[in-house]
Amino acid sequence: MLTAGRPEVILWAQPKGTRVSRLDSFIRRLEAQRACLDLAVAAIADLPGPVLELGLGNGRTYDHLRELLPTREIFVFDRQVQAHPADRPDASHLLLGDFRDTLPNALGRLPSKAALAHADIGSGDRQATAELARWLAGELVALLATGACVVADQPLRHPSLVSHPLPEGVPLNRYFLYRHQSE
Amino acid sequence: MLTAGRPEVILWAQPKGTRVSRLDSFIRRLEAQRACLDLAVAAIADLPGPVLELGLGNGRTYDHLRELLPTREIFVFDRQVQAHPADRPDASHLLLGDFRDTLPNALGRLPSKAALAHADIGSGDRQATAELARWLAGELVALLATGACVVADQPLRHPSLVSHPLPEGVPLNRYFLYRHQSE
Repeated sequence: MLTAGRPEVILWAQPKGTRVSRLDSFIRRLEAQRACLDLAVAAIADLPGPVLELGLGNGRTYDHLRELLPTREIFVFDRQVQAHPADRPDASHLLLGDFRDTLPNALGRLPSKAALAHADIGSGDRQATAELARWLAGELVALLATGACVVADQPLRHPSLVSHPLPEGVPLNRYFLYRHQSE
Repeated sequence: MLTAGRPEVILWAQPKGTRVSRLDSFIRRLEAQRACLDLAVAAIADLPGPVLELGLGNGRTYDHLRELLPTREIFVFDRQVQAHPADRPDASHLLLGDFRDTLPNALGRLPSKAALAHADIGSGDRQATAELARWLAGELVALLATGACVVADQPLRHPSLVSHPLPEGVPLNRYFLYRHQSE
């Protein structure tokens, strides 16, 4: 269960009314991210198409996706590559630059529309993140096959992105899961 | 349960024989770290003394410890402070510099010997980490009250550091837990 992460001993050790620690919330976010990715991977099992990873970061979720989907092509979009060389895609699967430059031209680089996209785009700047998410939704939809799943750390609003039930134990608004349906 | 982190759906989505992804192993390490900290906090409930945090990093475990132990002084040792200002100790609880300079002189800064120490000291350099851990054990013991707990990301070898049973779900050698006993 994703909701039960602490040993029972803590039930009496933690003073009542304390807030969730940053360690707690970080673990919850990662667990939610993984649960959503795993659910999405299962949901697209019968849908052909590559995977889009928006934001490589340190390459942890990229590594997770390539473990779960060893036969799919994964195309990675990021401004720069910080990940360890072993956790980077090859040059033909790496679209380097600002999303606003790389995404609108991405369809020509893909073998077909994507079956799955993961967007981990949040930064410390809440307003810039919200603006990016607003812009992203429309651009992303153009790259997605009908029935594709989108897993995102931000809410994405678009008429053809329909919220998908979250995995058990993942509360609303911790992570976001959508299915792409034709308008 | 710490061992059950994935929704059932993944049981048939993941090809057999694939290795654990970096996302999986990162989550497991954080869950183990938190479970060990929570167990140690409970174990020292009746033992007075401050807390030592060796390696502040981004301040997540510091934040966790101060949430669990709001009335204890927490002394932080690190080479430099990268954590957000809200997640830093005040100057009187921060011992800045190389552990090899700050630890041998630390007892004079503490109100008494410590009840709990957390050492998250691993770096990318395995040999340097192992050497630091070897050196650290003896220095740390001099700062600990009898009965104190030590939670560490590296094995610490010292005659008066006795292995403490790990929390349920944390496998051997993922994280380390010791009790300080008089020699």
